[in-house]
This record gives sequence, C-alpha cells and structure tokens, in this order.
Amino acid sequence: MAVSETSPAQGPAQPAIILVRPQLGENIGAAARAMLNCGLCDLRLVAPRDGWPNPMAFATASGADVVLERVQVARTLEEAVADLHHVYATTARLRDMRKHVLTPEQLAVDLHHTAALGERSGILFGPERTGLFNDEVVLAKAVVNAPLNPAFCSLNLAQGVLLIAHAWYRALDDATPPRQLASAGSRNATHEELAGFFHHLETALEASGFFRVAEMKPATIRHLRNLFQRAELSEHEVRILHGAVKALAGERHRGKAVRIGGTDAD
Amino acid sequence: MAVSETSPAQGPAQPAIILVRPQLGENIGAAARAMLNCGLCDLRLVAPRDGWPNPMAFATASGADVVLERVQVARTLEEAVADLHHVYATTARLRDMRKHVLTPEQLAVDLHHTAALGERSGILFGPERTGLFNDEVVLAKAVVNAPLNPAFCSLNLAQGVLLIAHAWYRALDDATPPRQLASAGSRNATHEELAGFFHHLETALEASGFFRVAEMKPATIRHLRNLFQRAELSEHEVRILHGAVKALAGERHRGKAVRIGGTDAD
Repeated sequence: MAVSETSPAQGPAQPAIILVRPQLGENIGAAARAMLNCGLCDLRLVAPRDGWPNPMAFATASGADVVLERVQVARTLEEAVADLHHVYATTARLRDMRKHVLTPEQLAVDLHHTAALGERSGILFGPERTGLFNDEVVLAKAVVNAPLNPAFCSLNLAQGVLLIAHAWYRALDDATPPRQLASAGSRNATHEELAGFFHHLETALEASGFFRVAEMKPATIRHLRNLFQRAELSEHEVRILHGAVKALAGERHRGKAVRIGGTDAD
Repeated sequence: MAVSETSPAQGPAQPAIILVRPQLGENIGAAARAMLNCGLCDLRLVAPRDGWPNPMAFATASGADVVLERVQVARTLEEAVADLHHVYATTARLRDMRKHVLTPEQLAVDLHHTAALGERSGILFGPERTGLFNDEVVLAKAVVNAPLNPAFCSLNLAQGVLLIAHAWYRALDDATPPRQLASAGSRNATHEELAGFFHHLETALEASGFFRVAEMKPATIRHLRNLFQRAELSEHEVRILHGAVKALAGERHRGKAVRIGGTDAD
C-alpha cells in the first residue's frame, strides 16, 4: 500500500475511514456507499477477512465504485495509519483506558480544524463481532462514541460509518470555532514518528529491567502509549523525548565514553 | 391494523417510522435495528412487497425483535397515518411542489415540540427503487432531506431511517454531552504529584548529562512539562512514569547492585 502518496481527492481535507479486520464484504460496500453519500473517498482496509477485492462489496456499494476502486489494503494497523497525524477509534466500551470521548459532532469539528492545518486524520472501526482490540484503541488520540439507546447500542458497521461521515459532512461549512491546540511552530508528529518513539522507549525500558512482571507488561505499555497519545505530541517534542530516553538510558554517555576512551562516570 | 390504539411505548413522545411499499426484508430489519439504536419502537409498513412477517427482516434486525414484533401493517398509506397529527415525507427531489424542506435536525426540533403538546407524528420513507409518489408526498406537511453529496445522494433505506432517528435521539435532551475523558478508575493526578514527577524526571535528566547546553535547559524543561500537562495524567500513570524514569536511570538497578554487593551490569 502506498498511503504516503496522497492523491488530490484524498488530500488532507478528507479523513480516512479505516476498517480493521472487516468480516463481511456487504458491510465494506455499504460503508463505501455511506462514505460517498457524505463526500468521503479515502477507505482503507486492514487485513479484511475474505481478502480483497470482494465481489459482495461491489454489490452493496450501489454505485460507489469510485471508493472501492481506490481502497488501500494494509496488513497491519500500524501500516494503515503511518501517514496520519491524528487517529480516532470508534468503540462503545473503554476498558481500563484513559482517553477523551468525542461525539461524532465534536470529532467533525476536530477533523475540519486539523484538515485546515494540512494534517491528515483517520477513524478506526473494528470488526463486526468484536470491535477493536485494546492495543488498537491505544493508537488513537481519542475515542468517538455516538450517543445511542443504552439498552441497544450495537450499531451495524456501515451505520457507524454513516453517523461519523454525516457529522463530518454537516460540519463542512460550520463556523463553530474548534477546540484548539496552539502549536508553537512545530507540526504534529505523524503516527510513524510516534511508533518510532514508542519502540525506543519500550526497548530502553526492557533493557533496564522495568518490566519485571511479565504479565503486567502489555497493560503497562498500553498505559504509556495512551498517555503520550493523549498529549498530542509535536514532532519537536518527540525529538526531545527521544533525547531524554537516550540520556536516561545512558546511550549518549556510553557513546562518549567510547570516544574519549574513559569509563562511564555513572 | 390498530394504529389508533397507541401503547405506552408508542405514545406521543415517539414519532412513527412508516415504510411505504418496502421491497427488501433486509432493509426492514436494518431499519428496525437503527430505530431501536435510537430508542424508537413504532414501525409501520404500508403494503410490503413480500408480505409480513418476513424472515429476512428478523435476520438483519440483529436483536431488535421488539420493534419487528410490534410492526403494524396497513394496506394503504391513508390508513397508516390516520391517527397522526403531523406527517413528514423523506424525498430527495421535490417535483413541482411547494413545501417546507427540513434537515433531520430541524425535523427533530419539530417532533419534540409537537410531542410535548401530546400530538403524534410520523415520517414516510418510500420504496428503495423509486421513492415516494407525488401523491404520497402531498400528504406530508413538510419534506425532510438530509444534506448529502449532491453527486451521490442515493441513501440506503435503513441509512435514511438512521439519519432521521439519530437526529431525533440527539435532540432528546439537547444537552450535548461535553467532551469527556474516560478515567479507567484512576483519579486525576494532583499538581503536587505532577510536580513530584517533574522534579524526579528533571533531576535524573540533569544527572544523565541531558542538558548539555545550559541556555537551552529552561526551554527544554518547559517543553517536557507542557507535554505531560497536556496528557492530563492520572495518579496511576504518574506512578508508572516514576517507575520508568527510575528504571531507565538505573536507580533500581544500582539499588539492587548495592544490596547484592555486585557491580552495575550497565
């Protein structure tokens, strides 16, 4: 997949809809139709169960072939979001996680604001039966949840896409000022840059013996990724954090020690 | 059909959804599911093509059987709307007719207003292929039309029901839910706890030689404090961060080394 190369129609003005491990071709097609109803074209699939292309999708798209023909298929979620600056996850339940929860309308305001800054966003939808895994939700800066009947809130996949896409469409020319993040001159980090920092941090923590209790490691990593996702890091801040981890772990020190032939002063 | 006798759950507070000559059972079921997602139960069918009950409808309702079991079937549209005070028609094109055109949001305001007066309303949806006939649209006091991509505005029947029903649901208590932060059980960190973490982090960074250029130090510290402030840390997360800094800086290691009398493995 070549998500880094963005065609004009899939430019920053449009959020990507990312279906993670979708099961039914019918739902992929219906989602594409709902997207095009609202003027969205950037559909990405992560490991679709029945492969791609899927004839059932074209049957239910009812003419939204332009969306299906441009579909980008990725093997992993990380690959699918690598070029995005902002990732949101749709989920009904937030298990043991600390994240902002937005309505589709609040999301739409965010999406239009960041698009105006030239930044790319994407919204994750989980598989029909199970929804997103915790480790997938962690990748998101915030969670989106449409208010629904609490006694019956399980929404069909394409219906979920429609609620998000239509809120985006309704807000296309809405002048409500968004919640803003003053940027101090540095652009937002991409998800690829964030992933690079997580890798550095977690490798250094592993080497330091931080993960003493193996069973706790996944939850601890989720907590750490979550809090840095919430911080909406700039590219500059990611570089500072890299430097801090490097310094704390003694990586720079050791390098210098080797150069000057001395021993580690630590 | 006995629409004149309205059960409590189908009282004036709820608009009826009226599918006129629906063709596919799948769409009837999906419409029922979308209705219940938004707390609506009063579904009426006018001359469904494949009769009633329709097993395909139950298959796609995904558990919204309570709506399908109460379905009221009428032979004619006039019969289906006989007990209603206000009828609205969904249609994309208003051919040679002078009618008010409402968005789903404007309709929702009307519906809640008339319901508060004890009056009953219903919304007409035409058959999948053709939409409503002119003579059917004429029965309506106004037309409802969701803003959609003008180049691709043909909406699936159940998708149309969802847009109307969800606008109604959102307007139930116009108090739009605020932007929320799901807390995962841990309380917010106090500023004292944050200050304690900053002190720990900055002391460790100082010891590691991170602040090589003295003039840059204040700005770098501001960046670090800022990003952690933005993350809105919980008390639990602050403890994890303390542990991470401690591990990275080798504090725990050194402690252990002293206890067991060995040397720092670093």
